[in-house]
Amino acid sequence: MLLRRFASTSTLPPTIRQLLSSPQPTSPETKVQLSGWIKSVRRQKNVTFAVINDGSCASGLQAVLKPDATPHNLTNGASVRICGNLVQSLGRGQLYELHVEAVDVLGECNPEAYPIQKQALPVEFLRDNAHLRARTDISAAMLRLRDSVLRSLHSYYEAQDFHYVHTPILTSNDCEGGGETFRVSPVSSSPSSGQSPDSSVQSEFFSKPAYLTVSSQLHLEALAASLSRVYTLSPCFRAERSQTNRHLAEFWMLEAEWAFIDHVGDVCHVVEETLKNILRCQSENALLWKDGDGTKLRSLEHASRPGVPWTRMSYTDAVKELQKYHASSRVGFEFEPAWGRALQSEHERWLSEQLVGGPVFVTDYPSSLKPFYMRANDDGQTVACFDLLVPFIGELVGGSLREERSSHLVEAIQRHGLKEEEYGWYVDLRKYGSTPHGGYGLGFERLISWMSGIENVRECIAMPRWAKRMLL
Amino acid sequence: MLLRRFASTSTLPPTIRQLLSSPQPTSPETKVQLSGWIKSVRRQKNVTFAVINDGSCASGLQAVLKPDATPHNLTNGASVRICGNLVQSLGRGQLYELHVEAVDVLGECNPEAYPIQKQALPVEFLRDNAHLRARTDISAAMLRLRDSVLRSLHSYYEAQDFHYVHTPILTSNDCEGGGETFRVSPVSSSPSSGQSPDSSVQSEFFSKPAYLTVSSQLHLEALAASLSRVYTLSPCFRAERSQTNRHLAEFWMLEAEWAFIDHVGDVCHVVEETLKNILRCQSENALLWKDGDGTKLRSLEHASRPGVPWTRMSYTDAVKELQKYHASSRVGFEFEPAWGRALQSEHERWLSEQLVGGPVFVTDYPSSLKPFYMRANDDGQTVACFDLLVPFIGELVGGSLREERSSHLVEAIQRHGLKEEEYGWYVDLRKYGSTPHGGYGLGFERLISWMSGIENVRECIAMPRWAKRMLL
Repeated sequence: MLLRRFASTSTLPPTIRQLLSSPQPTSPETKVQLSGWIKSVRRQKNVTFAVINDGSCASGLQAVLKPDATPHNLTNGASVRICGNLVQSLGRGQLYELHVEAVDVLGECNPEAYPIQKQALPVEFLRDNAHLRARTDISAAMLRLRDSVLRSLHSYYEAQDFHYVHTPILTSNDCEGGGETFRVSPVSSSPSSGQSPDSSVQSEFFSKPAYLTVSSQLHLEALAASLSRVYTLSPCFRAERSQTNRHLAEFWMLEAEWAFIDHVGDVCHVVEETLKNILRCQSENALLWKDGDGTKLRSLEHASRPGVPWTRMSYTDAVKELQKYHASSRVGFEFEPAWGRALQSEHERWLSEQLVGGPVFVTDYPSSLKPFYMRANDDGQTVACFDLLVPFIGELVGGSLREERSSHLVEAIQRHGLKEEEYGWYVDLRKYGSTPHGGYGLGFERLISWMSGIENVRECIAMPRWAKRMLL
Repeated sequence: MLLRRFASTSTLPPTIRQLLSSPQPTSPETKVQLSGWIKSVRRQKNVTFAVINDGSCASGLQAVLKPDATPHNLTNGASVRICGNLVQSLGRGQLYELHVEAVDVLGECNPEAYPIQKQALPVEFLRDNAHLRARTDISAAMLRLRDSVLRSLHSYYEAQDFHYVHTPILTSNDCEGGGETFRVSPVSSSPSSGQSPDSSVQSEFFSKPAYLTVSSQLHLEALAASLSRVYTLSPCFRAERSQTNRHLAEFWMLEAEWAFIDHVGDVCHVVEETLKNILRCQSENALLWKDGDGTKLRSLEHASRPGVPWTRMSYTDAVKELQKYHASSRVGFEFEPAWGRALQSEHERWLSEQLVGGPVFVTDYPSSLKPFYMRANDDGQTVACFDLLVPFIGELVGGSLREERSSHLVEAIQRHGLKEEEYGWYVDLRKYGSTPHGGYGLGFERLISWMSGIENVRECIAMPRWAKRMLL
């Protein structure tokens, strides 16, 4: 018969996580088949123990084999399919173990050559082996943490009736100006093709220069003017050449924007709720914090306590505190704090780690320090904005009310020396049914760093990109 | 007091969707406050009716005002905050209406100037007004549909124990070759800066040329070799100059990849389950299909019926059927079907619309027609792959088993004329605990087009980009 209409019976077999989390079987043993990779093998005289993991959860499953039924190529890193009985374990540290009836080595792994050895490997070595890095326990736990955090985020925003939207990655808008954006052109008109630079304008794929987005905010505002409450998780790009442990050239940013709010405190409130909700994702903590810094973990746990609101203080008050400390302390800061100057990293860390001892929203910065789109306060000097500073990380979130009054906005565009014609559409959003609105942006890798205790954001993303470095 | 620790009491007020979907109030009327935009106003002698919508759902809420309490600037497009009593409606077509006590126009909207008028507007006009397009009912419904589909996807994959991961957008890999990729460089080294083309190599930001991804698959395979089951929803880019209703320069692709499967039919099965699960997201259908094509809607509903498996047929059998029809029909095809030639759009549509009358998986194409990474079948001529063809859309999904045998893979790389050194890391994945695995990619905007009846994918994304066109 030519057309085969058939009901496929294949479904995905249970993972180790599903097997281990299913309710205790009534019969003393349950026959299962599972697949995964060997994490360790201990060959004893009368028995072989092998830990098998399929990446579905931190803990592997201990398989117990008879020595004569243990293949010689059952080595660390090999992939296997195993049949056996899942029984309650008498050993310590595990509820179940697998009494193996048959094992099939699907893919061998030469233990001499395999770069991912059991002992801890230097961070640089793993960066060089980016394609294998996810096979380490820590990296896999970090990837699962990202997944849990995202699910928690989606649930929180669904409950608040926000819509998840996609904003463009390619934009004509060199949003924050300066030389930190990436430019995009089709391969045929790139410099390496040998065309003369003059031909670039005619050959623009989009009829005008295209850049990679540095923030989805302006686009989100256009959508919030229809759907009221929107958010996105989007890749963002900065051609930043500084090599810090907080910066990547390609990173993910959660940005939310919503209409009909009047106070910057309302934005802070949503941020605090969102984050406290996320901080409950602690399924990977046992592994991630195993050798981690106890002070940091306690600080994180403290921040996640429900019912204890995070501190809020104005920039003006923050500067006063910084100045007081700078004047009284023998050490002081490298940069003298003063009203109207940006807060330096040392200031931000002192505020959250020393003064407050936890996350702190610093609000109402001078307008000269912030982008044109933030809503002017009535004092004429500050804008209705905040930075959320958290211990050991620094700035995690930035947000504000947006200027919804078109005359104020046009004035700010001029004052910031931006080209009015480039922001025509953005001003236009205020012409028809403008609403008070605001939002925020959260650096996703920094959040993962905070939650996992992994210090460098390069280890908080599967395949990091930074200046001079792009593997795969 | 300097540090204000206070429990903020602000929470987001209920949206119209939440108000309308909450259980029927016990008291005959409920006092509410809500915000939104005016969709229409009907001023009668003794009463004014205004429909207000906040974008949370398709239906607005009818507000009933006294004429002397109706502000003169309550016009289509204006944003308002309204207090009133939510009461059961006596009118047709709605369960509730709002008896207004106070209305505050937050943002006026000059009805003469407002481009988004009530009547249907030409598609081209809305594309030119991309920043306002989301304010139309259809576009807002499309955005909400994207959101529901994504939530449904995430739930399905969570239940199957897949992890949601992020793969890089910037890659050194000109994956599928040819001139259809975009090249990325920092602004300072772009052609327009006037540097000579020769300097481009030294000034590469990443020390080597960077491209925008065309597919996440190869990276997903690296992660599936640790987590077993992974998926991503990622922007993808093609510098395609063809102007069809199925192509964008920037689009979103759902890609899933998993280990430990042996048959391409298992991939088809997961695709079918995923899609049938998604097709249940019909909350926006009433609006989207209001003036839609009945044939298309019936075809969609037929495809979503549980218990009726989708047809599968081999490429070889498909070509036989096409040839039979081509020989017997007076009209025939423009392109003669023959084994070894690519299926043309007309062939794909005939297969799904005429022969099968529904979605059809066409499997096992000749290896010469498919990328190097697909797993070779034992016949030495075909690969273990499929395209899912759906009526009125054509190819919606493509997938395959991946070649997990390193010797076969190296041979395929050579046969396809690719540079072995560029795929070193990819071959390396097969050296250590290789597993049989496979996956698929689904064009998200095509899916939305299929589900919404919106013919052109340019209307299936908030801010579309295509050759010569990038607004905002």
